[in-house]
Amino acid sequence: MEFNVYLSGEIHTDWREQIIQGCQKHNLNINFCSANTDHETSDSAGDFLGEENQPFWRDHKSAKINAIKTKTLIERCDIAIIRFGDKYKQWNAAFDAGYCAALSKPYITLHDEAIIHPLKEVDASAQAWATTPTQVVEALKYLASN
Amino acid sequence: MEFNVYLSGEIHTDWREQIIQGCQKHNLNINFCSANTDHETSDSAGDFLGEENQPFWRDHKSAKINAIKTKTLIERCDIAIIRFGDKYKQWNAAFDAGYCAALSKPYITLHDEAIIHPLKEVDASAQAWATTPTQVVEALKYLASN
Amino acid sequence: MEFNVYLSGEIHTDWREQIIQGCQKHNLNINFCSANTDHETSDSAGDFLGEENQPFWRDHKSAKINAIKTKTLIERCDIAIIRFGDKYKQWNAAFDAGYCAALSKPYITLHDEAIIHPLKEVDASAQAWATTPTQVVEALKYLASN
Amino acid sequence: MEFNVYLSGEIHTDWREQIIQGCQKHNLNINFCSANTDHETSDSAGDFLGEENQPFWRDHKSAKINAIKTKTLIERCDIAIIRFGDKYKQWNAAFDAGYCAALSKPYITLHDEAIIHPLKEVDASAQAWATTPTQVVEALKYLASN
Amino acid sequence: MEFNVYLSGEIHTDWREQIIQGCQKHNLNINFCSANTDHETSDSAGDFLGEENQPFWRDHKSAKINAIKTKTLIERCDIAIIRFGDKYKQWNAAFDAGYCAALSKPYITLHDEAIIHPLKEVDASAQAWATTPTQVVEALKYLASN
Amino acid sequence: MEFNVYLSGEIHTDWREQIIQGCQKHNLNINFCSANTDHETSDSAGDFLGEENQPFWRDHKSAKINAIKTKTLIERCDIAIIRFGDKYKQWNAAFDAGYCAALSKPYITLHDEAIIHPLKEVDASAQAWATTPTQVVEALKYLASN
Amino acid sequence: MEFNVYLSGEIHTDWREQIIQGCQKHNLNINFCSANTDHETSDSAGDFLGEENQPFWRDHKSAKINAIKTKTLIERCDIAIIRFGDKYKQWNAAFDAGYCAALSKPYITLHDEAIIHPLKEVDASAQAWATTPTQVVEALKYLASN
Amino acid sequence: MEFNVYLSGEIHTDWREQIIQGCQKHNLNINFCSANTDHETSDSAGDFLGEENQPFWRDHKSAKINAIKTKTLIERCDIAIIRFGDKYKQWNAAFDAGYCAALSKPYITLHDEAIIHPLKEVDASAQAWATTPTQVVEALKYLASN
Repeated sequence: MEFNVYLSGEIHTDWREQIIQGCQKHNLNINFCSANTDHETSDSAGDFLGEENQPFWRDHKSAKINAIKTKTLIERCDIAIIRFGDKYKQWNAAFDAGYCAALSKPYITLHDEAIIHPLKEVDASAQAWATTPTQVVEALKYLASN
Repeated sequence: MEFNVYLSGEIHTDWREQIIQGCQKHNLNINFCSANTDHETSDSAGDFLGEENQPFWRDHKSAKINAIKTKTLIERCDIAIIRFGDKYKQWNAAFDAGYCAALSKPYITLHDEAIIHPLKEVDASAQAWATTPTQVVEALKYLASN
Repeated sequence: MEFNVYLSGEIHTDWREQIIQGCQKHNLNINFCSANTDHETSDSAGDFLGEENQPFWRDHKSAKINAIKTKTLIERCDIAIIRFGDKYKQWNAAFDAGYCAALSKPYITLHDEAIIHPLKEVDASAQAWATTPTQVVEALKYLASN
Repeated sequence: MEFNVYLSGEIHTDWREQIIQGCQKHNLNINFCSANTDHETSDSAGDFLGEENQPFWRDHKSAKINAIKTKTLIERCDIAIIRFGDKYKQWNAAFDAGYCAALSKPYITLHDEAIIHPLKEVDASAQAWATTPTQVVEALKYLASN
Repeated sequence: MEFNVYLSGEIHTDWREQIIQGCQKHNLNINFCSANTDHETSDSAGDFLGEENQPFWRDHKSAKINAIKTKTLIERCDIAIIRFGDKYKQWNAAFDAGYCAALSKPYITLHDEAIIHPLKEVDASAQAWATTPTQVVEALKYLASN
Repeated sequence: MEFNVYLSGEIHTDWREQIIQGCQKHNLNINFCSANTDHETSDSAGDFLGEENQPFWRDHKSAKINAIKTKTLIERCDIAIIRFGDKYKQWNAAFDAGYCAALSKPYITLHDEAIIHPLKEVDASAQAWATTPTQVVEALKYLASN
Repeated sequence: MEFNVYLSGEIHTDWREQIIQGCQKHNLNINFCSANTDHETSDSAGDFLGEENQPFWRDHKSAKINAIKTKTLIERCDIAIIRFGDKYKQWNAAFDAGYCAALSKPYITLHDEAIIHPLKEVDASAQAWATTPTQVVEALKYLASN
Repeated sequence: MEFNVYLSGEIHTDWREQIIQGCQKHNLNINFCSANTDHETSDSAGDFLGEENQPFWRDHKSAKINAIKTKTLIERCDIAIIRFGDKYKQWNAAFDAGYCAALSKPYITLHDEAIIHPLKEVDASAQAWATTPTQVVEALKYLASN
């Protein structure tokens, strides 16, 4: 069975690669996609539209360009994997989770036990909570196999 | 004009009261609502369904009970005000923002300048960004007046 | 906070009355509704449209008349309570649960521990599982209070 | 005409194979799909996410993993065939039927005459009731032919 | 239980009055509504927008004014009663039925046995078929009673 | 540009063939589809599900089988062409038009001037009214060309 | 019959007052609403959120505050009246028309004959075209009367 | 990543070609589409349906034929680019923008600084504002690259 999987959240570790490579070993029929995960080009995604003096507007323009991609990917996907690392605010990951929940797109969260409590609302709407990329690979292998 | 306004996010300062009282002074036709903002009863919202040994499941049960209210309130509201304070993870606030965005519910964010950058995705889908409850009152006064 | 609550499922015990009376004690702002819970009039709901020789068509006509009510009630409700007793097939209760799930209507299941396993798919989409009407009253009291 | 057909319900007889093979004989342009029909792996679908002491939570985790697949399949299908055998509770089949009904996905029920009465609500929203896999093949042959 | 009931179709007999008066005797909580049932004012509903030489455009303008009302009424109603008499084309009644079907609004058809065959597609999506206004009153009494 | 076109209505003249052949001459990228247009097999579409004594139920079973196809085709199409001939009731064609209108599927009606008045509600929601298959071919050629 | 009517477009003539007063004479059950029609306060609607040096951002903030109201009003209304005067660009009026069209909200345009051609796409999705406020009053009187 | 891009608005300059050729240089996986951009054939799109004496009806018929294409293209696209030139009313472009906004289709506006103020409502719902085709190419290159 074919699945479109959207990988959302943390960009500072290689969890995406681990999941993608883990699935490739099993020859699963899965298309992976992500927002732009390169910090610098993501932050400057709107710069070509003209410079801004105020940080808010620079961020605003870039974030809205990136949102075109994010929104399209979430609507096209069958499942989202939403990763929360142990650093940074990562509000965009929680935002994606809320977006998925409202669209009834199933998602799996991927985070450590240490942040169970602050993520309880995000986990409450998830289909599963995983702590390692390997577990996500297991889930996808199970789902994509016939 | 009548508006239903959902107040989401931070529970450790009195921003809700400031907005509600500010609007009352202008006799605006606004119904305010919130999730349970009492930390303790919110965390124990599912306890009556049976004790859990594992923190994850206790949180899960409470969060799902609370989600019944949150979901209903978001769907009934015309506008959400989403507040991010300077402490804690507040992923539930970002989750609510994503939920609103997917449902095309307009929302206004309320946060300090210091966290513009991590909130850029949340702000990108907002109708406005305010830094003080007074500004939110101004917005609501403008909208609810004829 | 006002809630419309749809009570679905078992008709052979007084769980509906227990929940309604339990909530009345707390003066909650809740409107309860149900499909026709009288077995005989429910089974004959379509008889006035002409007699049928075949049991299938008699059932069909009555079930479709009842479905007008059920469908309308589910779409109007904010929460459904779905009760599974220890007898009978009760496929209509599971059908209502699936209907709620597809519409993203939150529901709470009410059933004994003995039938956890066969109800796992129904429980998987529920916001909570209760074993007694008193627990449901607790949930509604929590949700409907301010 | 191409159809995506979702086969839901009973897993203890070979009704799925009968339908699939029956259709293959006619070279119909039909893609069949099903939830995981292997009882054991289905029940343990969430075990890789960590062991649970309580049966409810083990079932819960597995059922939610399986629901990712079920939900995706129902939304992708054009028709569902929903089979009720003469044993077990089969609430998941009735749940799928309710889910289809709410999404306006047409479905055909497949069950014996003996259970007409308890299935009347499920049949009331069906497009047809069949008693044998051969009849379902007939229906699909009629629909998928030009 | 309160119901909004839309009465669609034939305008040359008093079936609407029979249903309304029949329900009034039982003090049912039902709001009835209809498109304009006066042939002449209905046909001239767009005349105030300027005269037309071609019959098609005169009809077009009137029909589009009337459609504002029809569309609003169907979307607001809980049930439609759709009446087919023994004269005229009555394509607007069948159009309303299709509109209801697509919106999943339950409807009951009201017509003689003589036209079962040409109405089979319309009846196939209906919740019931009645032959007399009295039967419709029975249905509404059953549904609107508690 | 590729279009899926659903041809609905009259089955006693060769208007479908005229349109299909007319479009083939222009090598348009159009997929045509129709409900079963063979009167006899359409009326007996449900017979394999068991004989019925009452004409209503025989018609009902066949019409519901046919509705699976019709509903799927309307939802998949980009445009519907809805033909009303000068004979028969053709309520199914008007039903399809209402269904399209509620789903915001554009449709073109194809009928003689003589029946403008009774079709005014159906035409009021159409994108165009044609009187000959050639005109429909012109419309499709215009739309499907780049 | 009660109607919610949204008055969109031109703010430099008294067409709104003419319609409202015209309807008041007939005691129609209509609630009228509008975006803020005061040019100056509309343009400065976002100023309380902080000054902007660039005209684009000042306009952007005000327009997004105003959009909260506009969006809410369009979603609540049953009919929109969309007025195009003979001056200015009035792209917001055409934007509102497109918004209504996508939501299937019926609207009536109000404009002079001189601008038929540039408004053809807007008129193509309208239910009617009027040239005077009196005609709109006629339409509303017809629709809101029983 | 593959994108379907709808190019809406001004037809008197070669902005479409500039964007399409600019993207071709980067081998982007983008499908571009447009309404008919030939003024004359667009205005006469409905002429084959019969001549009209009144300009309003001629325009109406052509605009409704064109709307079939426009509506289909907007619903199929992932992004719309909406161009406002410095001449003409271009209400159809603003109409398309409103249509996109209501469907939550992301769009980018393309216009000069001189018309910021009258386009503020259209820009308020856009994901970005560009002033040159080159900037649009930059946006699409960024989005369509991996």
